[in-house]
Amino acid sequence: MSTTIDVPESSNVAKEKVVLAAPSRSGGWKKGVAIMDFILRLGAIAAALGAAATMGTSDQTLPFFTQFFQFEASYDSFTTFQFFVITMALVAGYLVLSLPFSIVAIIRPHAVGPRLFLIILDTVFLTLATASGASAAAIVYLAHNGNQDSNWLAICNQFGDFCAQTSGAVVSSFVSVVIFVLLIVMSALALRRH
Amino acid sequence: MSTTIDVPESSNVAKEKVVLAAPSRSGGWKKGVAIMDFILRLGAIAAALGAAATMGTSDQTLPFFTQFFQFEASYDSFTTFQFFVITMALVAGYLVLSLPFSIVAIIRPHAVGPRLFLIILDTVFLTLATASGASAAAIVYLAHNGNQDSNWLAICNQFGDFCAQTSGAVVSSFVSVVIFVLLIVMSALALRRH
Repeated sequence: MSTTIDVPESSNVAKEKVVLAAPSRSGGWKKGVAIMDFILRLGAIAAALGAAATMGTSDQTLPFFTQFFQFEASYDSFTTFQFFVITMALVAGYLVLSLPFSIVAIIRPHAVGPRLFLIILDTVFLTLATASGASAAAIVYLAHNGNQDSNWLAICNQFGDFCAQTSGAVVSSFVSVVIFVLLIVMSALALRRH
Repeated sequence: MSTTIDVPESSNVAKEKVVLAAPSRSGGWKKGVAIMDFILRLGAIAAALGAAATMGTSDQTLPFFTQFFQFEASYDSFTTFQFFVITMALVAGYLVLSLPFSIVAIIRPHAVGPRLFLIILDTVFLTLATASGASAAAIVYLAHNGNQDSNWLAICNQFGDFCAQTSGAVVSSFVSVVIFVLLIVMSALALRRH
């Protein structure tokens, strides 16, 4: 793989004057950051897809009913969980579409365009992923603990499987949030002049 | 003010070799970005402090009581709102402490250190502000609309003032989130090589 990477870079030396001035050590360091960026993106895709799928399949029907509780709980019951599924699917879609730009950054470590494009869109989708994860966490907390002052009872005694599944989805979304923060910090480090 | 800004830059030309190679047009553009960064930070401080203060003072005592509802609702009643107050106060504190670094970026538009420091910490506090704003928004939505399937009743009919105040705090926190995204995008644009 190292030979195929070296070929386009050396053939573009005439076009890119910056490469001539930069020391080769800096190029290798930036290439390492770009490869780590690509690997982290794969992990974030898995976390985001897992979160969307886990939340989207959360559905529990009780074998009994009381005066207060209905038979079924699914992610459709909560607007916040619907928002979560849509948002995490969007984030996973963006991450898949961002992979080619990450590959470009591996092949040409000194190119500024792809990194700048990725850091701006990463920031937007970090906000989206954090918002959906945090709002779903607030609802999951309520489902576990309830709230005395507003007389909202905890539903996790009845819907145990539903609560476990939604909690897992929230944890998975926070994994993708942490990876997004790492991606932005790494892109910022690689963007600076050397 | 422009004279005081020019003095340290010209006295450091011998130390910074990059400044010699850079065109002067790029320096003026970067200085404009740094000044805008400072102004946006002031706006974000106002939004974050306003959000924390509005949420922290939300308190409503009803003149009557029913079998189900207690007399009083305050931000203490909801763990999410407590988290919101603490987080937005932290964000406001960070923004105040970041102002000196923003001033350094104005005085020395080509310095990489302050911008890199700011973009990394901005990303972390963007995540914090988004998480608190989104989780509080999820609770405010429940307070307004309730949830049929889990039998959580809307409390905004009783606690109208409380709901209005918490909704305002959430809106104010989202203003600070938008400003954070703008700050990160502007820092990324200014970090790239010219």
